[in-house]
Amino acid sequence: MARRGEFDLIADLFSPLASSIPGALGLTDDAAILDLPAGCELVTTVDAMVEDVHFYPADAANLVAQKLLRVNLSDLAAMGAKPLGYLLTLVRPATTSESWLQRFAHGLAADQRTFGIGLCGGDTVSTAGPLVLSLTALGHVAKGQALRRQGAMPGDILYVSGTIGDAGLGLELVRNNDTHDTSGDLTGLSRAETNELVARLQCPEPRLALGQALVGIATSAVDISDGLIGDLEHIALVSCVGLELDLSAIPASDAAVRVIGNKETAKLKLLTGGEDYELAFTAPASETKTISDISRKLNLALTPIGKVVSGGSVDVKGKDGTLLPVINRGFSHF
Amino acid sequence: MARRGEFDLIADLFSPLASSIPGALGLTDDAAILDLPAGCELVTTVDAMVEDVHFYPADAANLVAQKLLRVNLSDLAAMGAKPLGYLLTLVRPATTSESWLQRFAHGLAADQRTFGIGLCGGDTVSTAGPLVLSLTALGHVAKGQALRRQGAMPGDILYVSGTIGDAGLGLELVRNNDTHDTSGDLTGLSRAETNELVARLQCPEPRLALGQALVGIATSAVDISDGLIGDLEHIALVSCVGLELDLSAIPASDAAVRVIGNKETAKLKLLTGGEDYELAFTAPASETKTISDISRKLNLALTPIGKVVSGGSVDVKGKDGTLLPVINRGFSHF
Repeated sequence: MARRGEFDLIADLFSPLASSIPGALGLTDDAAILDLPAGCELVTTVDAMVEDVHFYPADAANLVAQKLLRVNLSDLAAMGAKPLGYLLTLVRPATTSESWLQRFAHGLAADQRTFGIGLCGGDTVSTAGPLVLSLTALGHVAKGQALRRQGAMPGDILYVSGTIGDAGLGLELVRNNDTHDTSGDLTGLSRAETNELVARLQCPEPRLALGQALVGIATSAVDISDGLIGDLEHIALVSCVGLELDLSAIPASDAAVRVIGNKETAKLKLLTGGEDYELAFTAPASETKTISDISRKLNLALTPIGKVVSGGSVDVKGKDGTLLPVINRGFSHF
Repeated sequence: MARRGEFDLIADLFSPLASSIPGALGLTDDAAILDLPAGCELVTTVDAMVEDVHFYPADAANLVAQKLLRVNLSDLAAMGAKPLGYLLTLVRPATTSESWLQRFAHGLAADQRTFGIGLCGGDTVSTAGPLVLSLTALGHVAKGQALRRQGAMPGDILYVSGTIGDAGLGLELVRNNDTHDTSGDLTGLSRAETNELVARLQCPEPRLALGQALVGIATSAVDISDGLIGDLEHIALVSCVGLELDLSAIPASDAAVRVIGNKETAKLKLLTGGEDYELAFTAPASETKTISDISRKLNLALTPIGKVVSGGSVDVKGKDGTLLPVINRGFSHF
């Protein structure tokens, strides 16, 4: 609940974000009304970010907004859904300035244009604690067609989009920078490479077009938020299968290769770094040509990195076929 | 994001709450999939509660859960929607005990049964600040049939459900109790009356059946969260009408009457107390009989308290028809 003076500020900043959604009713009603396209189901998810946990006061407010939106859109992408809009909860300490909120709203506005979505509703409340942002994303998918973590079959090929591990390296860079610790493996990077890795962390690219293109083709999919291995374990668990990865096939960016070199033990680190927001998915071998066509059409690498087997574990194989040990398998959301 | 140990706790507590919603996929996927009934639109809203602002550590965790759910369901009720489910964000300090979370989950489970809904998804994150709870409610309504704040026409009759001002008095009781201040007007209450007023504050009754029954009958509706006058101002604003209330017609509970006595100035206070979560709505005079039938069928008082006029203000008239001054018109959500 906000006092009237605050209400005016919020209305000034956030009502324009709702203008593209007629059913948001200019945020002047009790709830929003959204009409889904005929034959479609609603797909919905929520993700929150907390100051000093998921972002820092020094972070650019527009990028905080974009990350909040994009991590949620990534969940819709993993289901093959098309995004419609979102609801926002802003839990605001007295120290959050009007200017921060303005830049935050600008970040949302920019991404609304990028992804063709709008604000459907929200709540703003005050707190004595850190700033908390919670966002519920709404999307739709043709009835019964959503991609799921369940559905991978032994014999399917396992793919990932883009490159893996960049955001995790970006996080290391940010942390090293914070602590003025310039030791470690990251010092050899050019400014451009550093920026590229940090951008992967701060402004991920939800693979919406890919998710939608994979509907009817992929047998299972997940977005890589907690680390490749950790997220693949979700597929293994609910699909009741094993997954066998070929470490040498894991796609790494030039910047990542510069950091990790050619050692297998170093490359393993890429598999447990979170927040890449690429998609991992499985598909029958008969879809190889289709997937290669999708890759070309979207100008996005889709790399076969292993296969679905029976059993229930996620294993990584090295150059000579030996099983490599994976520690610190990642984090989990509820 | 939650570490694995915490993930297990959360899964144990919250996965069972998702079992009635097949599309929640046991909270094991990236997002939930919900199929709306044919010919229906989605209705969605979000409301958050913060420890030490909207609830207190000493409050019963199950009642905190129920209030969080019910204030959101009340927004769906005001649109005439039928609830389907909800998504939950739990922003949790290390001090929130497992036992508190268990009781919180029990409160949700109880209300899920009451309202025929289920958990569709969620996120749990940690914080150095107070506990924050954000809930997104999802419901549906026949296409184009949602009740709105817009639509009141001069000549319509203005109604409220139940009794007005009880929750505001309940809040005073709780505050007085906290500060050991037993002065004021509330001392004459019996234990039962005290409990009744506090229950109105802590466990409001969302008027879902009423909202659904009013679809096609009411010309506008709002739920009373910020105080009757403040919420009626929303109807006046978006419907471009004035509202004229007859103070003597405002329905008050026996407990409230005991507190306020017969003085008009005291009764005015009922009109600005928040959190009643009754519905205020307008309907043409031709619907009088229908509304009286709904009242009987739902065993819920629906009291005409005034009328829609031209102009744009919300005015309260006393016994002799004089305009009464209203101060402190209430709070607003964004």
